[in-house]
Amino acid sequence: MKLTPQVKRILENYEADNAATKNNLTRLLMHGKLGGTGKLLILPVDQGMEHGPARSFAANPAAYDPHYHYQMAIDAGLSAYAAPLGALECGAFTYGSQIPTILKLNNANSLNDVKNQAITGSVKEALRLGCIGIGYTIYPGSDYCYEQMDILQNLIQEAKDAGLLAVVWSYPRGGPFLDKAGETAVDICAYAAHIAAQMGAHIIKVKPPSDHLCLGAAKKVYEDQKIDISTLAKRTEHIMQSAFAGRRLVLFSGGEQTSEETLFNTFQGLNDGGASGAIIGRNTFQRKREDALAMLDKIINIFKS
Amino acid sequence: MKLTPQVKRILENYEADNAATKNNLTRLLMHGKLGGTGKLLILPVDQGMEHGPARSFAANPAAYDPHYHYQMAIDAGLSAYAAPLGALECGAFTYGSQIPTILKLNNANSLNDVKNQAITGSVKEALRLGCIGIGYTIYPGSDYCYEQMDILQNLIQEAKDAGLLAVVWSYPRGGPFLDKAGETAVDICAYAAHIAAQMGAHIIKVKPPSDHLCLGAAKKVYEDQKIDISTLAKRTEHIMQSAFAGRRLVLFSGGEQTSEETLFNTFQGLNDGGASGAIIGRNTFQRKREDALAMLDKIINIFKS
Amino acid sequence: MKLTPQVKRILENYEADNAATKNNLTRLLMHGKLGGTGKLLILPVDQGMEHGPARSFAANPAAYDPHYHYQMAIDAGLSAYAAPLGALECGAFTYGSQIPTILKLNNANSLNDVKNQAITGSVKEALRLGCIGIGYTIYPGSDYCYEQMDILQNLIQEAKDAGLLAVVWSYPRGGPFLDKAGETAVDICAYAAHIAAQMGAHIIKVKPPSDHLCLGAAKKVYEDQKIDISTLAKRTEHIMQSAFAGRRLVLFSGGEQTSEETLFNTFQGLNDGGASGAIIGRNTFQRKREDALAMLDKIINIFKS
Amino acid sequence: MKLTPQVKRILENYEADNAATKNNLTRLLMHGKLGGTGKLLILPVDQGMEHGPARSFAANPAAYDPHYHYQMAIDAGLSAYAAPLGALECGAFTYGSQIPTILKLNNANSLNDVKNQAITGSVKEALRLGCIGIGYTIYPGSDYCYEQMDILQNLIQEAKDAGLLAVVWSYPRGGPFLDKAGETAVDICAYAAHIAAQMGAHIIKVKPPSDHLCLGAAKKVYEDQKIDISTLAKRTEHIMQSAFAGRRLVLFSGGEQTSEETLFNTFQGLNDGGASGAIIGRNTFQRKREDALAMLDKIINIFKS
Amino acid sequence: MKLTPQVKRILENYEADNAATKNNLTRLLMHGKLGGTGKLLILPVDQGMEHGPARSFAANPAAYDPHYHYQMAIDAGLSAYAAPLGALECGAFTYGSQIPTILKLNNANSLNDVKNQAITGSVKEALRLGCIGIGYTIYPGSDYCYEQMDILQNLIQEAKDAGLLAVVWSYPRGGPFLDKAGETAVDICAYAAHIAAQMGAHIIKVKPPSDHLCLGAAKKVYEDQKIDISTLAKRTEHIMQSAFAGRRLVLFSGGEQTSEETLFNTFQGLNDGGASGAIIGRNTFQRKREDALAMLDKIINIFKS
Repeated sequence: MKLTPQVKRILENYEADNAATKNNLTRLLMHGKLGGTGKLLILPVDQGMEHGPARSFAANPAAYDPHYHYQMAIDAGLSAYAAPLGALECGAFTYGSQIPTILKLNNANSLNDVKNQAITGSVKEALRLGCIGIGYTIYPGSDYCYEQMDILQNLIQEAKDAGLLAVVWSYPRGGPFLDKAGETAVDICAYAAHIAAQMGAHIIKVKPPSDHLCLGAAKKVYEDQKIDISTLAKRTEHIMQSAFAGRRLVLFSGGEQTSEETLFNTFQGLNDGGASGAIIGRNTFQRKREDALAMLDKIINIFKS
Repeated sequence: MKLTPQVKRILENYEADNAATKNNLTRLLMHGKLGGTGKLLILPVDQGMEHGPARSFAANPAAYDPHYHYQMAIDAGLSAYAAPLGALECGAFTYGSQIPTILKLNNANSLNDVKNQAITGSVKEALRLGCIGIGYTIYPGSDYCYEQMDILQNLIQEAKDAGLLAVVWSYPRGGPFLDKAGETAVDICAYAAHIAAQMGAHIIKVKPPSDHLCLGAAKKVYEDQKIDISTLAKRTEHIMQSAFAGRRLVLFSGGEQTSEETLFNTFQGLNDGGASGAIIGRNTFQRKREDALAMLDKIINIFKS
Repeated sequence: MKLTPQVKRILENYEADNAATKNNLTRLLMHGKLGGTGKLLILPVDQGMEHGPARSFAANPAAYDPHYHYQMAIDAGLSAYAAPLGALECGAFTYGSQIPTILKLNNANSLNDVKNQAITGSVKEALRLGCIGIGYTIYPGSDYCYEQMDILQNLIQEAKDAGLLAVVWSYPRGGPFLDKAGETAVDICAYAAHIAAQMGAHIIKVKPPSDHLCLGAAKKVYEDQKIDISTLAKRTEHIMQSAFAGRRLVLFSGGEQTSEETLFNTFQGLNDGGASGAIIGRNTFQRKREDALAMLDKIINIFKS
Repeated sequence: MKLTPQVKRILENYEADNAATKNNLTRLLMHGKLGGTGKLLILPVDQGMEHGPARSFAANPAAYDPHYHYQMAIDAGLSAYAAPLGALECGAFTYGSQIPTILKLNNANSLNDVKNQAITGSVKEALRLGCIGIGYTIYPGSDYCYEQMDILQNLIQEAKDAGLLAVVWSYPRGGPFLDKAGETAVDICAYAAHIAAQMGAHIIKVKPPSDHLCLGAAKKVYEDQKIDISTLAKRTEHIMQSAFAGRRLVLFSGGEQTSEETLFNTFQGLNDGGASGAIIGRNTFQRKREDALAMLDKIINIFKS
Repeated sequence: MKLTPQVKRILENYEADNAATKNNLTRLLMHGKLGGTGKLLILPVDQGMEHGPARSFAANPAAYDPHYHYQMAIDAGLSAYAAPLGALECGAFTYGSQIPTILKLNNANSLNDVKNQAITGSVKEALRLGCIGIGYTIYPGSDYCYEQMDILQNLIQEAKDAGLLAVVWSYPRGGPFLDKAGETAVDICAYAAHIAAQMGAHIIKVKPPSDHLCLGAAKKVYEDQKIDISTLAKRTEHIMQSAFAGRRLVLFSGGEQTSEETLFNTFQGLNDGGASGAIIGRNTFQRKREDALAMLDKIINIFKS
């Protein structure tokens, strides 16, 4: 496993991390079909928790089984598999040495509309399960955000001490300023990426930004400074810039797509804008295995190009 | 590095601190172009967190990169660089031995209007990153202030045990008594400086006080006692007096300036009133590098005079 | 320093304390001009924190300097000096061996009207600064009172283990039953003194009680039992009685006085009723040093008589 | 209690200590008849432990009672009283506020000839008993010395954190190089004082040095460098020099005297050589109380001169 | 303070250290007259402890005062000053910000011939005193060596967490295989350097190797492999090689010299062989200050060449 120049350049941006954390990052960046390209494609499966099992898995009942997702991530040559505690416990030994895993430490559910998440795992459990990192979601804008960040601060410190990566899902939501459109507005996505970077995240997950501008004060700046947000590629560039001028890896979701074509266009735009890759869940396991494998292969090729 | 009489006089005011803390204070006071004068000029960059990245950096896109600020602080001969965890991690090794750094342990963001801040770092991380001190913001007046102070009390004790300096941003905000004008009213600024001093801060950051008086009970005293608040210099004197008769270092921001001239006038007034120096962020990185360097040089000369 | 019969009698009331705590109590009772009389006169300076610096010190600007108060307490022959962390740190070495000190561990400020206080110090810091005891305020009646008492319980236990005294400011305030008049009503003051005694305070601070009766149920008893509350002396007797029949030291403030004469009358009444002494802050440092020294000398003579 | 120039000069040598420790040192230096002179005379009573009660106290049976020694130290105006746990517990309250006390944390006994001491107290107990410091004996040369120093290192750190003084009895004894004459040889005493100073002792206790030279390598140096060891005064100077050029307080015992005259000559020689004072046990309590008081008064006058 | 290529190359060898430790190493490598050359010259003063005060300081009595050595290290432009606890406490504030310091955590003395050292300090105290690192001696070969290494393992871990450097004096001594000549035999010195490197030392101190070969098994290899040990330069090369092929800094003592000329020849040989520098104690402070300054200047020039 010779490190490629792309991977070396990325690793140089993590100068304050210990060797174990950097090695986990290297392992992630060198794994799967995108290994060595500096790009990542990660499969997250926490939707059962977030939307309920039937909404998540009934379209493809094989996906009720946690082993299905491990196997999918392996067979598709993805970079890693991320899930909550219970699902990882089902395959941590069977598949643990075949695919890097990330333990998602908090999760929301839809049985309440409180803009918060429950803690569902710990750094110690991520170690016990042999994961390369932890995942954690914050809701910038939410009334719970500061509390979520307080908890995240402790988790990140503990994870780094233990040599684990910290992957932060930064999903703006709730509070006095954000309506639904605001949650994916480009100024808000950029802000969310920056907050995660400042918290010490190694890898940041945001949603693909729309060309909407949400906050009044920000809007003025975007217009005055003529920041180009006309295309997804341009908006992606702006997000990457907001994550310490590209010094932090930023992954994007595929958004709520209707067709594969739209999905591929999205990923093409993200890649053109310099995205570090993507995290793609529902679009994967809600279609048949062969279709999903074919689709993932195309996405991998987009990010390889 | 011979200590100057000015620095010695300042150190005598910190008689309860251990040798390591006093040496970190000495190191700070002897660093940069103001080294030995007893004055400080510190570059803080947490505005990306507080106002969002575009509002902070779009005017000078080079500033999206955390390395830019380290380099600016070094090249301008500033006393120190203060930032949240993520930004310091980007350069802690590359620049850490060239400029004293301060890890800001809490931060607000503008995606919510709650008058609080999230914890984003720890004393242990400040040690790991080789910082000379920690920074922490309290919002006197806010409904969260007592909670913020409870946390600060623990952090200050932990920092002093480890030989680190405690820099407290004391920014009145919120609660039943403070409107926008009140936040920079001279009685409120003086009060905010005093609270930070009593908490055990080594260095206090406040905003330049206006000639407004906010609290009714205070207003009467200022009038009865004929406290001169007619000029910025006089108001600055009053703030310094409120910080234990000048026994604590108090730094001021440049305020929300429109022109360099106004900015220089502000700093001249602060210096005439005996301010210990300034913390200047946006006015630095929102202009071109050469302009910023020229401006900082002039400010340094004001504080040297 | 031979113990006097008065001091010996007092010490017998603290039979569950360890030798170090009793020695600190002895040291306090034997210090200053009231040394050996069993009476105490303590200078507390936390008003800058509570009311703001100008309202506290502008009438006598020398008092902005924490050293001023140390020196005043020493020169006036007072029993002790009590202050928050920052102020004690300014003189802990210079004056620490010349006057017993008490570290006030919580403090309110007037920038918000919440009926609580922030934690501003710890038992460990009291040890580091060489204090003989800790001070802590509770607001009986306040919605925060139980929480304040929970914290106090821990602090008192920790202080006693380390041989320190616990001085409790018991100031009724807030909640559903107490209006402004109620805060100094004699039934409420007596109740507040008793609560502090039950918490394990060595020394209790209350305000001089008015002849008002606040709680309906209490009022009936005072009338049925013909409890004499007609004079300050009688009311003071009642407070002392409420603090374990005089087994705990109870100190009183001078109240918000307008003239020296009224102040002396108050202290005379307190002394006639058997008060253990007084804590006198603003009335001390808000007048010129010579006037304050003269006034304190008269008060000392009242408590000596 | 105004600090004298002598005391101020001494305090300056303890620049790394916290305010509480320096205040305890000040309290010690300002107490008793030698208060303010910079000299100390301390009564240690651990001989019952070391030699058995009859050998220690039968000559003056009143001395079987621990209260006797407290009272003696007080009445004679000594600087402090040092004893093991049990003895201090007998009078910690009765006398604790009248005389600074030092808890001796280890002690030997003569029922075995092992060159070691048992741990008989702790820093926590010194705090509980209101002591100003801890005492500890090491036997440089003994096969147990390194182990004794390991323990001492921890105790000194703990004591300093809690604001207590560390008094180290440095008594060369045992091992392959030291015979009986060697235990008081001037080269060995100087070495013992230096070891205690390097361990971080605030106050060092050694025996008065004889003009014997013990170690071959040292002997050569004393002769080559023509170090004057002809008189006790000259030897004392050399010991003080060996304790960081006089930056640490060094106390001497009176040695095994036969007459008062010899004893006074010894103390005169020590004082002429700049000794910081003496620790005098058996010579005190093995004679009648009046005789002891008269003798101590003469010794005090010697150190005052 | 721009990092030089030499310093950058050295820092790359410490890739597993955190930013704070690397910054302390940088600070050390950039300090003094050798700053930036990648070479170090450190003044250690623990000989008073090891050989007794007179043998150490009588030749130049000014050196009895710990301040003398701080001042010497500063005036000579040395890289750092290393000493036990007591000596550092005497000047930690006065000189602490003018010269990097290293707290020596264990020390031997010559009052016994046991091949061990006593613990005389801790990592916590190194932090409190503002040191950049800890020092610790092991005696490879001694019956106590495994115990010494067990303790060292813990200290190194604690030091690295706190951002401190670990400097290991690796002095072969005692045990069944080493006679006096063996202690400086080249195979033994090389072995000692390697053991310290494997323990995780950042900087290693050994004695200049003689051309003696001590262990039979090693001797055979040196002869078979024709390892050139004919000159000090060649032997030094071999030591550096044994410390991870030069990836760890290795400092040498000057040995027991008789003349300056021999001393300079030794240092020239060390430098020719690629030594990282020297630690020079007795040869410094046992001559007059002016002579020592002149000598150190010459040594610095040797290492600069």
